[in-house]
Amino acid sequence: MTSVRPGRRGRRPGSPDTRAAILAAARERFAEVGYAGTTIRAVAAAAGVDGALVHHYYGSKDDLFLAALELPVDPREVLAEAVVSGDRDDAGERLVRTFLAVWDDPDNQPALIALVRRVLEPGGEPLLRDGFLPVVLVPIGERLGIDRPELRMPLLASQVLGLITLRYLVVVEPLASMDADALVAAYAPVVQRYLTGPLPG
Amino acid sequence: MTSVRPGRRGRRPGSPDTRAAILAAARERFAEVGYAGTTIRAVAAAAGVDGALVHHYYGSKDDLFLAALELPVDPREVLAEAVVSGDRDDAGERLVRTFLAVWDDPDNQPALIALVRRVLEPGGEPLLRDGFLPVVLVPIGERLGIDRPELRMPLLASQVLGLITLRYLVVVEPLASMDADALVAAYAPVVQRYLTGPLPG
Repeated sequence: MTSVRPGRRGRRPGSPDTRAAILAAARERFAEVGYAGTTIRAVAAAAGVDGALVHHYYGSKDDLFLAALELPVDPREVLAEAVVSGDRDDAGERLVRTFLAVWDDPDNQPALIALVRRVLEPGGEPLLRDGFLPVVLVPIGERLGIDRPELRMPLLASQVLGLITLRYLVVVEPLASMDADALVAAYAPVVQRYLTGPLPG
Repeated sequence: MTSVRPGRRGRRPGSPDTRAAILAAARERFAEVGYAGTTIRAVAAAAGVDGALVHHYYGSKDDLFLAALELPVDPREVLAEAVVSGDRDDAGERLVRTFLAVWDDPDNQPALIALVRRVLEPGGEPLLRDGFLPVVLVPIGERLGIDRPELRMPLLASQVLGLITLRYLVVVEPLASMDADALVAAYAPVVQRYLTGPLPG
């Protein structure tokens, strides 16, 4: 991610390079071994700096995690733009396609995997329950004008999270290798059903 | 889970009570904080025994985890019996209902949550990828006589895992509080689609 000139040993503390290297190392580490398994010491070692410098720049492990999660894209903007603008009857397809485009981009993947790993670890639940769902997903349902978004969006989230978990974290075949078109064909009708189809009760 | 008579202090090492208490403590701990967050020391403390005794009975943390997972039900038998016997066009409903019945049983929940937590932690992926999917789910598809079970069962697994994750681990409302009938109404058509509906490609 960061370009380090060959032959150059170490990084000047305080340079933008150093901060970026720490964030990149944190992102990779959180994605690989999860929040609980990540230590400041390991991040510092991977970035080639001292642990004290990581603390100095980014505070606690929790602060570092939040900084490392800074996505190149704002999910509210990307999703709202793609999903809300257009026919409501195709919103399921646009939503699946947009999710896959964001996730399949290698620039986004480490931060996204780190985020989902954290959601799935004990203590990380609020990121989804009190964050992504009410802040990002339910408002999209409201802007689409669907009824009962507070039920439909969790139903939808259960399918999208399951797909993401199997494709990117557990790496289950054939889901991990299928191309976006095949996945859209498989999942868009289900997501559309949750958005506008019949509901229980 | 284990009955300890009131007023009795400690447990005789080597008694069946002690072994059961260790397993129950391990199950609760793995479910609560995950595999990575669980230590033999914490399990021993919760069971009121010495850590060496835990090692003596159950070997490594990995061995203890496998022993703690011993489910009161064999998923192959329960699922195969419920899903395979009966009309293929209702198999989706029977599958969702059976999953929920097993998961909603408080006797099963700690071990099941511990298992899914482990699948979702780095290093636990093979339990699902090389275990549950090929050993339990795909054979059910084969016995149902559906085409392409190696694609259909992962699609189905992505929905079932997402529902389980949101309902039991992340505890997202309204999914966490909905009764089985409402969840069957919401999810059976989707699971049925993955079993017998149109496929991409």
